[in-house]
Amino acid sequence: MADECLFDFLHMEIVSHMYTEQQSSKGEMDNKDRAVCVSVLESMGFRVGQGIIERLTRDSPSFKDELDVMKFVCKDFWTKVFRRQVDNLRTNHQGTYVLQDNKFSFLTQLSSGKQYLDQAPKYLAFSCGVVRGALSNLGMDSVVTAEVSVMPSCKFQVVVQKL
Amino acid sequence: MADECLFDFLHMEIVSHMYTEQQSSKGEMDNKDRAVCVSVLESMGFRVGQGIIERLTRDSPSFKDELDVMKFVCKDFWTKVFRRQVDNLRTNHQGTYVLQDNKFSFLTQLSSGKQYLDQAPKYLAFSCGVVRGALSNLGMDSVVTAEVSVMPSCKFQVVVQKL
Repeated sequence: MADECLFDFLHMEIVSHMYTEQQSSKGEMDNKDRAVCVSVLESMGFRVGQGIIERLTRDSPSFKDELDVMKFVCKDFWTKVFRRQVDNLRTNHQGTYVLQDNKFSFLTQLSSGKQYLDQAPKYLAFSCGVVRGALSNLGMDSVVTAEVSVMPSCKFQVVVQKL
Repeated sequence: MADECLFDFLHMEIVSHMYTEQQSSKGEMDNKDRAVCVSVLESMGFRVGQGIIERLTRDSPSFKDELDVMKFVCKDFWTKVFRRQVDNLRTNHQGTYVLQDNKFSFLTQLSSGKQYLDQAPKYLAFSCGVVRGALSNLGMDSVVTAEVSVMPSCKFQVVVQKL
């Protein structure tokens, strides 16, 4: 439990700090303020993802294609960072991937069911950044978004940006 | 390495975020700005420490005195949070404790030696808060400070506040 809960608690503190700060400086939060919070958390995640993938792939052979990278992210990377493998990976073979995690580790602590569904996005911004950072260091620029319909299940959509 | 490095990277991001934010809003940082950063990081740590000790002592018997609490913090708590035990615990038996960790886990990644000594305080504020939070939940209000003379060794001073 050690580091696991250390990370979980710190992550929650950061999310709440960002939102409280933004709220206290403006009184009330509108969509723009929320976007600022999400963006700060996402970019923190981005750099964390970069750092982790760098260590993780140090001794890995190179990947043969985009799908190969995605499989690595869904298995090895996901296990290291989110403590389990992705349950389902789908792709349209045109650069869009959907990664489904039925028990997403950042949400399991929060709730199961629909009660706190509106709170979920706060806790996913960092994770989206982590995934985007990892992919970026593996040579794939992407846009990563997350969607929750029932907690703690979560769908990440990765859209690879072609140059 | 999983969660360990996840936490390490996030912790570094937070520290750098706090300092960059404070700096960018003011141009240059003075002692007061630095104090604000330290205080925000310390209070994040405080709540994290509270959360961790709550889980950790769920099934523990109660402690017989202050020294007993400190020993628990130096052994079990330290191992869970900072990945090793405290190397040396001293006390004047009047409410002051000095906890020496010769390889403090938050500093080992940073440097060994004196080169980045001036950067160390940034990375200790959160830890001081964690220790203070844990002690607070065990019924001991305290002031916790940290001192580094050669990295990665670190001395924490705990001064218990008597009512």
